[in-house]
Amino acid sequence: MLSSPSAKSDLKSHPSAQTQTLCDRLRDSRQLSLKLAAPLSDEDQTVQAMDDASPTKWHLAHTTWFYETFVLKAHLPGYAPYSDDFDYCFNSYYEAKGDRQPRARRGVLTRPPASEVREYRAHVDKALVRLFSEGLAAAASDPVGALIELGINHEQQHQELLLTDILSLFAQNPLRPAYRQPQPRPETFVAADMPLRWVDFAGGIRAVGHEGPGFAYDNEGPRHEALLRPFRLANRCVTNGEWLSFMEDGGYRDPMLWHADGWATVKTQGWQAPGYWQQHEGGWHQMTLEGLLLLDLRAPVSHLSYYEAHAYAQWAGKRLPTEFEWEVASAGYAPGGNDLSANALRPRPADAPEAGRLAQLFGDVWEWTGSAYQAYPGYRPQPGAIGEYNGKFMVSQQVLRGGSCATPGGHIRATYRNFFFPHQRWQFTGLRLAEDLA
Amino acid sequence: MLSSPSAKSDLKSHPSAQTQTLCDRLRDSRQLSLKLAAPLSDEDQTVQAMDDASPTKWHLAHTTWFYETFVLKAHLPGYAPYSDDFDYCFNSYYEAKGDRQPRARRGVLTRPPASEVREYRAHVDKALVRLFSEGLAAAASDPVGALIELGINHEQQHQELLLTDILSLFAQNPLRPAYRQPQPRPETFVAADMPLRWVDFAGGIRAVGHEGPGFAYDNEGPRHEALLRPFRLANRCVTNGEWLSFMEDGGYRDPMLWHADGWATVKTQGWQAPGYWQQHEGGWHQMTLEGLLLLDLRAPVSHLSYYEAHAYAQWAGKRLPTEFEWEVASAGYAPGGNDLSANALRPRPADAPEAGRLAQLFGDVWEWTGSAYQAYPGYRPQPGAIGEYNGKFMVSQQVLRGGSCATPGGHIRATYRNFFFPHQRWQFTGLRLAEDLA
Amino acid sequence: MLSSPSAKSDLKSHPSAQTQTLCDRLRDSRQLSLKLAAPLSDEDQTVQAMDDASPTKWHLAHTTWFYETFVLKAHLPGYAPYSDDFDYCFNSYYEAKGDRQPRARRGVLTRPPASEVREYRAHVDKALVRLFSEGLAAAASDPVGALIELGINHEQQHQELLLTDILSLFAQNPLRPAYRQPQPRPETFVAADMPLRWVDFAGGIRAVGHEGPGFAYDNEGPRHEALLRPFRLANRCVTNGEWLSFMEDGGYRDPMLWHADGWATVKTQGWQAPGYWQQHEGGWHQMTLEGLLLLDLRAPVSHLSYYEAHAYAQWAGKRLPTEFEWEVASAGYAPGGNDLSANALRPRPADAPEAGRLAQLFGDVWEWTGSAYQAYPGYRPQPGAIGEYNGKFMVSQQVLRGGSCATPGGHIRATYRNFFFPHQRWQFTGLRLAEDLA
Amino acid sequence: MLSSPSAKSDLKSHPSAQTQTLCDRLRDSRQLSLKLAAPLSDEDQTVQAMDDASPTKWHLAHTTWFYETFVLKAHLPGYAPYSDDFDYCFNSYYEAKGDRQPRARRGVLTRPPASEVREYRAHVDKALVRLFSEGLAAAASDPVGALIELGINHEQQHQELLLTDILSLFAQNPLRPAYRQPQPRPETFVAADMPLRWVDFAGGIRAVGHEGPGFAYDNEGPRHEALLRPFRLANRCVTNGEWLSFMEDGGYRDPMLWHADGWATVKTQGWQAPGYWQQHEGGWHQMTLEGLLLLDLRAPVSHLSYYEAHAYAQWAGKRLPTEFEWEVASAGYAPGGNDLSANALRPRPADAPEAGRLAQLFGDVWEWTGSAYQAYPGYRPQPGAIGEYNGKFMVSQQVLRGGSCATPGGHIRATYRNFFFPHQRWQFTGLRLAEDLA
Repeated sequence: MLSSPSAKSDLKSHPSAQTQTLCDRLRDSRQLSLKLAAPLSDEDQTVQAMDDASPTKWHLAHTTWFYETFVLKAHLPGYAPYSDDFDYCFNSYYEAKGDRQPRARRGVLTRPPASEVREYRAHVDKALVRLFSEGLAAAASDPVGALIELGINHEQQHQELLLTDILSLFAQNPLRPAYRQPQPRPETFVAADMPLRWVDFAGGIRAVGHEGPGFAYDNEGPRHEALLRPFRLANRCVTNGEWLSFMEDGGYRDPMLWHADGWATVKTQGWQAPGYWQQHEGGWHQMTLEGLLLLDLRAPVSHLSYYEAHAYAQWAGKRLPTEFEWEVASAGYAPGGNDLSANALRPRPADAPEAGRLAQLFGDVWEWTGSAYQAYPGYRPQPGAIGEYNGKFMVSQQVLRGGSCATPGGHIRATYRNFFFPHQRWQFTGLRLAEDLA
Repeated sequence: MLSSPSAKSDLKSHPSAQTQTLCDRLRDSRQLSLKLAAPLSDEDQTVQAMDDASPTKWHLAHTTWFYETFVLKAHLPGYAPYSDDFDYCFNSYYEAKGDRQPRARRGVLTRPPASEVREYRAHVDKALVRLFSEGLAAAASDPVGALIELGINHEQQHQELLLTDILSLFAQNPLRPAYRQPQPRPETFVAADMPLRWVDFAGGIRAVGHEGPGFAYDNEGPRHEALLRPFRLANRCVTNGEWLSFMEDGGYRDPMLWHADGWATVKTQGWQAPGYWQQHEGGWHQMTLEGLLLLDLRAPVSHLSYYEAHAYAQWAGKRLPTEFEWEVASAGYAPGGNDLSANALRPRPADAPEAGRLAQLFGDVWEWTGSAYQAYPGYRPQPGAIGEYNGKFMVSQQVLRGGSCATPGGHIRATYRNFFFPHQRWQFTGLRLAEDLA
Repeated sequence: MLSSPSAKSDLKSHPSAQTQTLCDRLRDSRQLSLKLAAPLSDEDQTVQAMDDASPTKWHLAHTTWFYETFVLKAHLPGYAPYSDDFDYCFNSYYEAKGDRQPRARRGVLTRPPASEVREYRAHVDKALVRLFSEGLAAAASDPVGALIELGINHEQQHQELLLTDILSLFAQNPLRPAYRQPQPRPETFVAADMPLRWVDFAGGIRAVGHEGPGFAYDNEGPRHEALLRPFRLANRCVTNGEWLSFMEDGGYRDPMLWHADGWATVKTQGWQAPGYWQQHEGGWHQMTLEGLLLLDLRAPVSHLSYYEAHAYAQWAGKRLPTEFEWEVASAGYAPGGNDLSANALRPRPADAPEAGRLAQLFGDVWEWTGSAYQAYPGYRPQPGAIGEYNGKFMVSQQVLRGGSCATPGGHIRATYRNFFFPHQRWQFTGLRLAEDLA
Repeated sequence: MLSSPSAKSDLKSHPSAQTQTLCDRLRDSRQLSLKLAAPLSDEDQTVQAMDDASPTKWHLAHTTWFYETFVLKAHLPGYAPYSDDFDYCFNSYYEAKGDRQPRARRGVLTRPPASEVREYRAHVDKALVRLFSEGLAAAASDPVGALIELGINHEQQHQELLLTDILSLFAQNPLRPAYRQPQPRPETFVAADMPLRWVDFAGGIRAVGHEGPGFAYDNEGPRHEALLRPFRLANRCVTNGEWLSFMEDGGYRDPMLWHADGWATVKTQGWQAPGYWQQHEGGWHQMTLEGLLLLDLRAPVSHLSYYEAHAYAQWAGKRLPTEFEWEVASAGYAPGGNDLSANALRPRPADAPEAGRLAQLFGDVWEWTGSAYQAYPGYRPQPGAIGEYNGKFMVSQQVLRGGSCATPGGHIRATYRNFFFPHQRWQFTGLRLAEDLA
C-alpha cells in the first residue's frame, strides 16, 4: 500500500501548519500511523525485538493513550475511557500516571489484539473530533489545541520509532523480510559522487533555541545567547564509501581513536561495522526497510553510535559539530529534504549544492553532535506529568540534529533536539564533520 | 472451538495404537495441534514469553520440521522441502542438523507468518500421506513407520508444551486472558475431600523400564532390575489446601526445609507461593488456561519446582518417591485419567479410590520424584541426530512421572520419564508423598 | 617449610585413629592447617580469587569457628568466645546459626588480620585441650569426642580446599607464583607408561555405604543393599597424554559427545582444554602448586568438569563408573596412595599394579562418577545446624570418589562421597573409565 | 603514624611549586604515598573491594610504573626496569602500552607482595633522583621535568583514590575498621550553624580554562571565552542536616525529582540515603576513615551521586552550578581549605565567611556541576600514550570542581576538572546550590 502512487503522494503531502487546520492535521497524523502499520501483519506488530524498541501495536496504542490521558480525560466532559486496563498497558514512562507494563515486556501483550488497538484508535479519534465540533478546541493557540499539537508531535516521534523498531525486528529475522519492496531509485540516486567541501561560518554571540508562535518542545528553549567560535562544516554527511575507508584503515581495531567506553563497547559487542551491515556473497550489504540491499557507497553512512561517529572524526583529524554550530549553520535552510514524506525510507546520496551551501541538513540521517544533552539556561520542565517529557532524560545522552529519512514531514525544525545514549544505533544516525576555523 | 461438543469429543477419542492404523493416528495427531492452536490469534501464536517457552507457531512449525528432516528428506524420494530457510528457523537443538535460531530468540520470527506455517504443515502432511500411499510406510514396526511413530510422540510432547507455554504468556499479561472460557465442572469436582491414605508396597528386585513392542523413548530402557525397599505411597497428590497449610506454617521462610540451591532461588526470585498464584481481592487465585480462577483447595497443587516439592516433603516428615517406586506402584493402573483428552485443562480433585488403590497416578500433574535423571544401565543413545533426543539432557535434572492434564491422551505410560531442572515450574508439576515402610 | 625433610615427614605421619589418641589427632590436625598456610604471605591468605573459592585465612578461621560454635559454646562451661563478630564473619552456610558474610565477599575481610586469626586459633585450641584435661572429652565414642571427630574431618576438608583455592588464586596471577618450589620427582615418576588394562567385577546384590565404629559423614549411610550388574573398571585413571588425543581428535569441537549443558559451557567459557592448561612456548603446560610446569603426559589428567569427564567417556566408547561400582571395586584396597601425606601435591603417573589390581584408587584425583549426588535410602539429616552439613546439597551435583593429591592422609575411605556441580573444575578432578561386562 | 604530630605537620606542609625545587616536591610526593599507606596492613593494601576501586598496593605500584614507563625508560639512559612483568600488572588503561591486568582483577595480585612494591618504589625513586643529579631534569619547564610534574600530579590523584578506595573496602567489613582513630575536632567544628546565604555574580563573556606557566591537565585548556548569565551561588555546600530534611520529605520516594536513569538506580540499588550512611542504634551514622561515626549535621553531605545532587536541587527549587559559573565564582579564592593537608580526612562544617564570600570552595567535597564532561573548544589530546590521560573519558560523565578533604594539598586549582559517572558515589562528593539571577 505504501508503494502505491496514491499512498506515496499521501505521505508526501504535508502542508504546513499555516495552511491546514489543526483538526485536519490531527486527522492526517492519525491516518499516517495506520498507513505506516499497514504493510505489517498483526504478528509483526506485536513483537518486541529488543528492550529499546517497542512493538508497532504498542506505538499505535500508546500514542492513542497519550491523547486519552492528557486531552480527553482532562478536557472532554463525559468522555468514557475505552478500557481501564490501558493505563497500565500503554503508559510509557510517566511516573505521575501510575504503574505500567515494564518497558522490556511490552512484547508480551498479545492482548489486546491489534484489531482492538485499531478500535481503540477509532474510539479516541471520534472523541477528539468532538473536541473540535463542540468548540473545546480550535487551534494550537488555545489550551486544548496546544495539547493536541503536542499529541501530533508526540505521535510523529513514534511514527519514526515505529519504522526503526520494525527494522530492528526484521534485521534479526533470518528470512530478512522487507517492510516494503525495493523502489526504483529516482534520478538523484545515480548522480556522480559529490566531493566533500567545507562551508565557513563566523563566530560571535548568536541566539539559539526556540522562541515564537510555532510548536516546539520545552527542551528547545528558552531561546538564549551562545558564544560561537569561527568554524566550518562539511557540506554533506560522511558516506558509506568513506566509512569503508575508515574500516579498511583499521578504524575498529585502533583504541586510540575511541572513547574508553566506546572501545569497551566495540570489544564486548564485537562491532566491526555500522549497525545492520552484513558481509554477504563477498560484498557489504545493509539491512534496510526494503530488505538486505547492496551498500550504496555514496549514501550517508547510517546506524552509527556516538562512539563510532566520534572515532571517525578522530581518524579524519576533524571533530563533530556542536549542536549550536549546527543550528546556526542551518539558518536559511527550510526543513524538508529526504524525510519520511519523500518516501525513500533510507538515506540518499546528496545532490551537489551550490558552492557555500550545505546538503542533507534535514532528513537522511540524524547527525550526532559533540554536545551532551542538557538543559538550556533557564529551562524548567512543565509542571505535572507532561513535564516528564524531556527534562528527565537530560543526563548521559548526546544531542542529534536534523531528522532522518524516517522523520515525518513537518516534524523537524532547526532548533529540534533529539537525544540518544552514546551506544545506541538502531536509529538512522550518521555524522557530518566540523573543524575550527583557524 | 475447543469448547464445542464435537471438538471436545475429538480431543477425547484416542483409540489405542492397537485399533487405529498408524496413518490414522498420524492424521489425528497432526489435527490435534491445529485444534489446540485454534483459540489463539496469530499474535498469541508468535510471542515468546520466557526463554524456556516457545511460541505456538514455533511448536507448529518445529514438529513439522521434525517430520521433514528425519522422515521425508531421508525416505521419500523426490520430496521437495518447503523452504530452505526452515532448517535454520525451526531446528530446536539438533547440533547434527546445523546452526539454528537461538532458543531465546524464537519469538522474533514474525515471519514466516502463522498462515505460512499452516501451509507448511499442509505441505508436509500431504507428503507424509504419500509415504503410506506409496507403500514406504505402513506400521510402526517398519523402519519408516518407526520414525513416524517417534514423530507422533514428539508432536504430543509439543502439544503439551504449547499449552504450558501459552499459559506462561497469558500469565504475564495484565489483562489475564483465558485460553478458553471456564467450563462448568463435572460431578467429580464437587465430591467431598478425599482424605490422604497410604498404600503399602513390598520391596525386592523388580524389573523396571520399557521393553516390548509398543513405542517408548530410548531413555525408558533398557529394561533392567532394580532393588526396592518396602515403601508406601500417598493415595493421591498433595492438594492446594494442604499447600496453604505449608505456607501458613512458614514453609517459604524456613531455610532448614530447603536444599541450599532451593533456598537461594526462593530468595532471589521472591517466591512465596507456587507458580501463577496471585492474591486477589483477599483470596488466593491461580492463573489457569481458563483465566484467573479462585484456588480449588481440593485440587492437586501445581506449578511447583522440585525445590518446593522437596521442601514440602521435609516439612511433612516424608519424602518424594523414587522413580522406580512410582513405576512399580503404577502396575495395574491403565494410563488415562485427567489428561488432555479429558479436556479439563487443569488438575482436578481426586475421586475416592478403593482402599489400597492410588488416585491421580496418570494425568492431573507431573509428579516430581526424588530420582535424578540419569541413564539406565546399558543405555546407549541412537546414532545420529535422533540420538540427541534424550541422552544429552541426562545431568542436573530430576525425573517426573505420570503426565498431566495437558498431556495428550495415549502419550503417557508407566515407564515414561519426563525431566526438568529443579527450579522450573511452568509445567503442571506437583507431588505425591512417600515414606519407608519400617 | 613444607619442603624441608622434617616438614615432609610431618605431613606423612598420619597414624591411624586406632593408635593415636583423639587429643593427639586433634593437635596434629590443627597444626597441619598452619603448616599448609605457612608458605603463604598474609596477602596471599586474604584474597578470594573466585566465588567458589575462599581465602586461606577464612579457612583457618572458619574451621576454628566450627569448634567454637558446635563444641566449646555448647560443651565447655565458662568458655569465653574470642569475639562476638566472628559468628558473622566465619559462618559458612549454617542458616541455623544466623546471618553471615556473603560467600562471594569473604575476600573483603582484610580485618581481622591473619595474625589475629592465628591468635583465634590458639585461643580455641587451648580451650579444646581443656575439654580433655577436664575430662569432658576423651575419645570419639563419647558425645563431645564425636563432635571433635567431626571437627577434625571438617578441617581436613578445608585443608584440601585451602590448597585448591590458593591454586585458583595463583593461576590468575600473571607472575604464576608457585606455592612451593618444584620438587625432584621420585623414582616412580620416571616409570614407563602403564598400559590401560581392565579389571572385571561380578554383579549381584552388594552392601554399600558406611556402617560401624569408625567415623563417616551422615551422607555415607545408611549402609544398604544395591544391585550391580557385571562391570569392568580401567586399572588406572585417564592420563594427560590420553586427554591430548581426545583434544587432537576434536573433543572440544564435537557437540555430539557432550551433554547439552556441557556444550553450552564449552561455548560460553571458551574451554579448549582442562583447567589450568596453558600453551606456552609451543607446548602444553599446567599451572600447579609448584608453578607452571610442562605437562606430564603419564600423570592423570586433572581439573576436569563432569561435563568433560563424560564427553571423554563418550568419545572413548565407554562410560563413567557408578559410585557403587567404584565402592565395591575398592574393597581390598587400603586408603592412602598419593594423598597429601605423600607430599607430591599433584597427580602422579601410576605404578604398574599386579594383574587384576587397580591403581590410583585413592589419592591423585577425585574420580567423577556417573551417579548424581542423592540421599541413600533411609537417610535423615541430623537435627539442628549440624544437619546442614550434607543433605541440603543433594541436588544437581555429581558424586566423586577416592580423594586426591590434596586430600589429607587418613581422611578418605571407600564409602566417602564427595560432590561438585558438573561445571566445577578447580579441584583435582579426573576420571577412570568403566564399561558393562557383556 | 598519621596521627603523630610530626606526621601531621608533614601532611600539612605543602610549599607551593614556587618555593620548592621540583626534585624536593617529587620526593615529598613519593613519601606522601607511603605515609598514606602506612596505617594499612599488607592485607588491607592488597584487596579490591569493588570494580571501581583499586588496592592500595596497586596505587603504590601504578604510580611508580607511570614514572618508569613515561620518564625513565624514555629519558634515563641505561635505566634497568625493575621487572618485565610489571608492565602487565600495573598499567591502568593505556592501550598504547599494551595488554594489562583487567581492572576488575587488580585484587588478585597477592604477588608481587607489598614489600616488593616498596622495593620497586625505592628502585624507581633512586633512578628519578639520577635524572636530577645527571642534569637530565631540573624544573617543570624542561621536557623531562614536565613529565615529572605530570607524574607528581598523577600520583596526587591516586593518593586521593587510595583513601576513597580503602574507605570502600572498610565500609564492607562487618568489623567497621577505622583507617585511623577518631581525632579530637578543632575549634571550627563546634561553631554554630552557618546559615545559607547567596552570593551574586554578573554575567557576560568570561575567560575560562587554564593558561599560563603553572601545571594543568590538558583537559583544562585551551583557555577560551564563555558566555555566562547573571547567577547566584550558595555560600556553602548543602549539609547533612539539610539532606535529612530532603529524606524526611520523601526525596528518595518521589520520581518527579529524579532523572529517569537516576530513578532506575534508586530502585535497583535500593538507595535510601547517601553512600556509607547506616542507621545504627536509632540514629544515622556514616562510615568514615575514622570508622563509623554519628552523622555531623552541620558538615557537608558527602558520597552523593550526580543523580542525588540533581534531585536535591530539584526539590530545593534550585539548580546545580555550571562548571564555568563555579570557576568564575572562585576567582579571588586561594586553593586550600579542608584538603588532605588539613588532615581532617572528612568534610567539616563551614566557618562563617564574610558577607558576599563563599565558603568551602576548595576541599571538603567535590561539588557536582550541571556540566557534562566534554572537550573545550580547540582541545586536542597530546600525541601518544600520554594523550590517553583525559580525552578518552569525555562522554557520559559530569564535571566536579573544587577538590575534597582527600585531595592532596597543592593539587587543586580553580580550573581543575574532575569527572565521574552520574551513578558513582564512593568519592567525597557533594553539592552547592545555584540559581539564575532574575
